[in-house]
Amino acid sequence: MNENIFNSQIVYNLRMSYAIINSHIITMDGENLGIIENGGVGFRDNTIDYVGPISGFDYQSYEFIVEGKNQISMPGLINTHFHSSSTLLRGGAQDVPEIEWMNKAIGPLAQSLTTEDRILGSQIGVLEGIRSGTTTFAENTRDVDSIIDKSHLKFGSRVVAAETINEISSNRVNLHPRDLYEYDKEKGEGELKTCEALFNKYQGNELISCMYGPQALDMVSLDLLSTIYERAREQEAMIHMHVAQGGRERIQIEERYGSGASTVSVLNNNNMLNKRLLAAHIHDTTNEERKLMVQNDVKMASCQSSIAMIDGLVSPVSDYINMGGIAGLGTDQAPGPGNHNMIREMRTASLLAKVTSKDPTALPCWEALRLGTINGAAALGIDKEVGSLQIGKKADIIMIDMNRLNMIPFVTKPFRTFVPNLVYSANGSEVSNVFINGKQILSDGQFLDVDVEKLKEEALDRANIIFQQASEEWRIAGSKLVSMVENGFL
Amino acid sequence: MNENIFNSQIVYNLRMSYAIINSHIITMDGENLGIIENGGVGFRDNTIDYVGPISGFDYQSYEFIVEGKNQISMPGLINTHFHSSSTLLRGGAQDVPEIEWMNKAIGPLAQSLTTEDRILGSQIGVLEGIRSGTTTFAENTRDVDSIIDKSHLKFGSRVVAAETINEISSNRVNLHPRDLYEYDKEKGEGELKTCEALFNKYQGNELISCMYGPQALDMVSLDLLSTIYERAREQEAMIHMHVAQGGRERIQIEERYGSGASTVSVLNNNNMLNKRLLAAHIHDTTNEERKLMVQNDVKMASCQSSIAMIDGLVSPVSDYINMGGIAGLGTDQAPGPGNHNMIREMRTASLLAKVTSKDPTALPCWEALRLGTINGAAALGIDKEVGSLQIGKKADIIMIDMNRLNMIPFVTKPFRTFVPNLVYSANGSEVSNVFINGKQILSDGQFLDVDVEKLKEEALDRANIIFQQASEEWRIAGSKLVSMVENGFL
Repeated sequence: MNENIFNSQIVYNLRMSYAIINSHIITMDGENLGIIENGGVGFRDNTIDYVGPISGFDYQSYEFIVEGKNQISMPGLINTHFHSSSTLLRGGAQDVPEIEWMNKAIGPLAQSLTTEDRILGSQIGVLEGIRSGTTTFAENTRDVDSIIDKSHLKFGSRVVAAETINEISSNRVNLHPRDLYEYDKEKGEGELKTCEALFNKYQGNELISCMYGPQALDMVSLDLLSTIYERAREQEAMIHMHVAQGGRERIQIEERYGSGASTVSVLNNNNMLNKRLLAAHIHDTTNEERKLMVQNDVKMASCQSSIAMIDGLVSPVSDYINMGGIAGLGTDQAPGPGNHNMIREMRTASLLAKVTSKDPTALPCWEALRLGTINGAAALGIDKEVGSLQIGKKADIIMIDMNRLNMIPFVTKPFRTFVPNLVYSANGSEVSNVFINGKQILSDGQFLDVDVEKLKEEALDRANIIFQQASEEWRIAGSKLVSMVENGFL
Repeated sequence: MNENIFNSQIVYNLRMSYAIINSHIITMDGENLGIIENGGVGFRDNTIDYVGPISGFDYQSYEFIVEGKNQISMPGLINTHFHSSSTLLRGGAQDVPEIEWMNKAIGPLAQSLTTEDRILGSQIGVLEGIRSGTTTFAENTRDVDSIIDKSHLKFGSRVVAAETINEISSNRVNLHPRDLYEYDKEKGEGELKTCEALFNKYQGNELISCMYGPQALDMVSLDLLSTIYERAREQEAMIHMHVAQGGRERIQIEERYGSGASTVSVLNNNNMLNKRLLAAHIHDTTNEERKLMVQNDVKMASCQSSIAMIDGLVSPVSDYINMGGIAGLGTDQAPGPGNHNMIREMRTASLLAKVTSKDPTALPCWEALRLGTINGAAALGIDKEVGSLQIGKKADIIMIDMNRLNMIPFVTKPFRTFVPNLVYSANGSEVSNVFINGKQILSDGQFLDVDVEKLKEEALDRANIIFQQASEEWRIAGSKLVSMVENGFL
């Protein structure tokens, strides 16, 4: 693998000034979409210095002029819950019972992943994310700094990083779901230290901010979690945690905290529902619990495709925002949902909201766009920097080519049909240009400065080895997929 | 508009012999997927004459050799319910209550469509369908032959055409839902004649077959429908009808046939549930009614995205196939669902089946593939000709490029992850080559012999005029969208 990572100083020096002219701009500024027809966007270095009508735009004063006719310009998409490092296992686990997914399907395959495989997988996942319009990734993983240094910083993507903190002693494979995990205090404290070291390591890096990453309430003691909340307050940082995922978590919480206890009730009783918490998934919550979370300004990260595919459930994002909660969308990991395409996630959120409520007006396209942009940024606490196109904000900008068979036609009167077409018809391949922090990463659908073909080849080669190595264990684990393979369905 | 349509004799003369080598083949032959790794597919003129391992393949004897490394070869997708002619209204109606969709949202816009606009829209819809892998389209529309002659035959797509037959006298705009439609016998008989004339017109055309197209049970009398069933039996043809769409249909059926009557019960009482019926949608049916339909070998055409977006409901395809019914998928019309991408429909069917049943094993990827290919062909009664790759079948073949960031990696051991990746991660843009009836239509993602840019320009120009013309009426109709526009959300 190419260890030759970009020096971030060099990345910054590559930034220039750009003027995007004649595109339809969805600024996401204000309470609605802030649409400007045939407008201009300008940025110098990493900062937007013009958004408005083309008439008042001195675009000749910029180094590069990007023609935006028949294109949309908009803020880059925000992936609020992202595990890039398992992307080499894409296609490895789906169509199995929820109870089999972790232990019988993905588990045996994941055991063959090396550190380098996790980085290579991350590179593929980050690139596919950027290719389909994502500019900020909320990475939630172990050893997140190797992923940042060797994947994100190599490509120039914005990261909100949460290093996983998990207090469970290592051997837990043979535990019955009702057997309580044993906590290893020293391990938990060590992982907290690893997490905190990143706050220093990336201090001052324009592209990286850090969160605390306790894995889930059943995987850390209340003692450690209290410490984490305290530290987070001191650092003015957020806590990115999986919350109320059901299954084993529900059982563990009941066993540990008493019958009737739930993740949300335990968090609430310990004053842990507050503005610092970014809660991922929350599909195993009651309406009352979600109300409590919203009232306490807890943010939600919702992975619509992942929870539908792996659990057969709907992560209740529509409900959450209807109560006034702040939420964003995420892609979780590739195996299960299949990919890291945030345009697909916006559409999926709307589709699932409609059928869940039997109401075709539920989660309309403009709300889906807010989830994918400004509200996603707010969920990550970075909405003062990104998430909308406003003067003074960072230049995280994507352009969408509407001159495609599946996007044609689009009109502006009596209303802008390019808004629904973007959410309900685009497939992600229409993303033409991507700028992150003022630097152009994608140009006319092609990556600048990245040898994509080589990375894809490496990924293919490694995946063949990984899956081959895992074959026997995978077969012995005996998920539902094994018999389907024997019968020629896979 | 360019009226210069291909003479179909010329189209046929353009066919050659092709050998596709070294691709992974999903033949869909047999009870499972019939996968052949790194195999060969050969066809001469319009007929497949080799499908098998590369070792036994004399591919040098073909005129053109297509390298298929890192690609999937599979049967072209079958769109079993398709109204291409409203594609210029894409983005025109969604996120509105079901009751508003037809009359307040799409209706005022549709009034501005000319015959030429319907043809131009069809051209865009057919091309976007082919671009994302569809080779057969079950067109269901009025004046279907103008669509066939000036759109499908221009591009070389396979059509199963149903000319709309509707017996309702023309002025019905101000009817209350409980006011029974008045039938106009002469009109109905005239439309039946128009429909039947097509059987003669396209007799012997390799690409076109015909069905009868009664619009829905509330829109034709039982007398006329009986005649249609009789004629269909004589012609050995099928009947493509919207069945049990709820809303106004349910009310009309109750008013006409008595309280408690439903579309399915009336059809059953009149011996109209049989193998000749292709029933679209059926979301307003009970489980018992669906069982009855399956027992009587009624075929189902299910438009997952359309019914979810317009009605907020799930068209029960998973239930139907679980009972042993034959079903295919369709895209309906562009406004509402947004596009004509059958790869998206396969994924959507699986996703909605999983969340509806709260079971992640529901409608797995291999069943989604059957819906999109061989079972879709069976639903249209053309499975002896197309829907799988078998020697002697027509050469309707698509290739999918897996060497994409969102499809990488894929492996074959211990199982073929390219199967889930195709259904759950592809977005349609990966379709590289499309052959229909032995003729190459798409090559490396580019259309041969079609001036796509010109068509897109025309579509854009016309749409601007159509929407502009309709602006005032659209505003007066006062759908929910009107206020959203005023508030800057669209």
